[in-house]
Amino acid sequence: MLNIVMISTGEEVLYGDIADTNAAWLSALFFEQGFAMTRRVTVGDDYEALAKEIEMCSLSADIVIVNGGLGPTSDDLTAASAAMAANVGLEQSDAWVAEMTTKYQQFGRVMPDANLKQAMLPEGAELIDNPVGTACGFMMQLNRAWLFFTPGVPSEFKVMVKDQILPRLQIMFNVVDSKVCHRLYTYGLSESSISDLFQVLILPDGYSLGYRSSLPFIEIKLFAPQNGTQVTALLSQMTALLGDNIVGEGCPLLDTIASLLPQQTSLALSEQSSGGFAINWLQDAPALSTKLAVSEVMVDNIEDPADIEELSTLIALRAQRLHLHAPATYTLTTGPSSTDGSFMLGLTTPDGCWCQQLVFKRQYNNYNRRWIIATVMFDMLRRHLQGKEVFGCYESLDRIATETL
Amino acid sequence: MLNIVMISTGEEVLYGDIADTNAAWLSALFFEQGFAMTRRVTVGDDYEALAKEIEMCSLSADIVIVNGGLGPTSDDLTAASAAMAANVGLEQSDAWVAEMTTKYQQFGRVMPDANLKQAMLPEGAELIDNPVGTACGFMMQLNRAWLFFTPGVPSEFKVMVKDQILPRLQIMFNVVDSKVCHRLYTYGLSESSISDLFQVLILPDGYSLGYRSSLPFIEIKLFAPQNGTQVTALLSQMTALLGDNIVGEGCPLLDTIASLLPQQTSLALSEQSSGGFAINWLQDAPALSTKLAVSEVMVDNIEDPADIEELSTLIALRAQRLHLHAPATYTLTTGPSSTDGSFMLGLTTPDGCWCQQLVFKRQYNNYNRRWIIATVMFDMLRRHLQGKEVFGCYESLDRIATETL
Repeated sequence: MLNIVMISTGEEVLYGDIADTNAAWLSALFFEQGFAMTRRVTVGDDYEALAKEIEMCSLSADIVIVNGGLGPTSDDLTAASAAMAANVGLEQSDAWVAEMTTKYQQFGRVMPDANLKQAMLPEGAELIDNPVGTACGFMMQLNRAWLFFTPGVPSEFKVMVKDQILPRLQIMFNVVDSKVCHRLYTYGLSESSISDLFQVLILPDGYSLGYRSSLPFIEIKLFAPQNGTQVTALLSQMTALLGDNIVGEGCPLLDTIASLLPQQTSLALSEQSSGGFAINWLQDAPALSTKLAVSEVMVDNIEDPADIEELSTLIALRAQRLHLHAPATYTLTTGPSSTDGSFMLGLTTPDGCWCQQLVFKRQYNNYNRRWIIATVMFDMLRRHLQGKEVFGCYESLDRIATETL
Repeated sequence: MLNIVMISTGEEVLYGDIADTNAAWLSALFFEQGFAMTRRVTVGDDYEALAKEIEMCSLSADIVIVNGGLGPTSDDLTAASAAMAANVGLEQSDAWVAEMTTKYQQFGRVMPDANLKQAMLPEGAELIDNPVGTACGFMMQLNRAWLFFTPGVPSEFKVMVKDQILPRLQIMFNVVDSKVCHRLYTYGLSESSISDLFQVLILPDGYSLGYRSSLPFIEIKLFAPQNGTQVTALLSQMTALLGDNIVGEGCPLLDTIASLLPQQTSLALSEQSSGGFAINWLQDAPALSTKLAVSEVMVDNIEDPADIEELSTLIALRAQRLHLHAPATYTLTTGPSSTDGSFMLGLTTPDGCWCQQLVFKRQYNNYNRRWIIATVMFDMLRRHLQGKEVFGCYESLDRIATETL
């Protein structure tokens, strides 16, 4: 088994200014590709400490990915530390100076002298192209390990890993046991409930399960061998166990809805307690956002229906009013929320209108509250389109009332 | 200087299922309290690897915080690893068994036998209370280091660190040089530009600067000693250098606007190219959201003014229409965006109307595009309220046209 280490650098990570999302991203990608991470280390912008860490890791690891510290400023020390660890000097890559000069020219600017530093690589290192930035990567061999140095900017890091480093690793280490990952997205069940449900699952060798909890959803990953013959049987057993809490097979909730919506239908959104979360979220699901005919975000607490019957009247009125602006097949509404943690939701379709009042069982911050409200709202439409019970079971919510018209 | 290491455990971190937010949180807290982190390590749920890591760290560190792996399941191995590293056995803490039994009774349940495992601590370790969960912490001395073991659940981890571990560390290590952190929030300058501007700054001993880039903002942190006499002079030098790109002193943009808005004024929002980003963002700035009188989110590309004069007409019309719903002192508008990356913005105030058309200099994803558009929109109001030029300079944007009525 390969020994794979990631070294993250930078005081902004070590002093907690930012969470190390590059590390999480790389770890997940590498796991899927058969390069499961053995260990991760974070050190500050300390020349000698980083050099020592690189040297230590190079003695036991096969692959070391170093991330960050390739910028133009004085606290970007990674190349110098790598040179120190390998006991070599730094030399200028003329190819990279030319590349940076061209990049600046494209923006109509002259390259600042500070950027020259980014072309100084350890002697003997091989340049790795960065098509989207001025920090080139590089690779070199030291002791047992192959070392890869990557920029800290997430977009640049990801392109470099996917396009340049992973293909090299696949050739160098001849890793062929990359996994195929099948994803189920669920809403409404806790991770421990899912884990209980899955007690009955028998996973053959080479198969494994992973959970990714991204509130309010839990993504379930089935890792399987390439051409695994058990995949279909396992997935259907899993979907049977999870029931109508599955909001997407292979894709998240909003994409599921987009794929279910018939041609020529459209959507209207009226938000109050979700405060614009839904409309903003929708923008990142292009297939669904093209279905949007009209939307509004009400300032909270301007209308305050006392009970579910008043709510259903309100929702019908809102749908009618939006219809005057732009006729839509489906209207989704979040009504007012109360200080007791309850909120109201409505779905209007050509077949009828469903309204419900729910209450949070535990405390969430404002952002997560809006996210959950928007999720349940979209989930009502998903359930309707799949011919399922519109009022679902959600572990973190209690239902106070429903009304169907 | 203290050598402080954090060891995070768990396959869900190492394989990238979750980002290590506990690590970021602890690092930030410790830095401010004078316990700057030296190094962080992440290892998987591997009994021997964790034991080895604990032992290695105990040889060079003064303080080691181990996080995770204290749960009741078979992959929670931290206590056993700690015992192995210290070459001692495990013994049951009767006090913790009693505590867990009481906790379960309060929920009307009987404690499952699996939880007994959580009371098995390395011989000689001192229990650390967990008032909000069943995973107790513990501390022990090994070689040079004091080791602290903490639960992985973020809420439990944070309470334990703040209430139990930090006070112990402050007594044990007599650290009194906790820092005061002063924050400036900027928009429109890149980190390298700020770094260039700050070349002239001379930081006395005990003072340091940190940057936190949270697109589209850059937060600048000045860490100073308690009662530092140079703080005022340094901050005024920094604010002079950054000029009107400072969107907040001590607080972010939206809170700055809230503090600048006169009593009895109100806000209307009309969003098109920002797609609801602004209204959703506003919900997390309570002081500003109470000023909101009315808001709308237009479906993109339903209105398409050809030039800036048409835009200003459109913006004035939108402001008038919103005014009929609910009169507002200020109306902020994001107009349509074009496929060439340009977008239009407007600010209507009792004193006049400012409109501008800008274009992105580089590619951003849809989410970041909306964020930047919403930021510039709010920044127009901030500038107006501060009596500054409403059309600011932004490094990542070019200005195509402006119109003032």
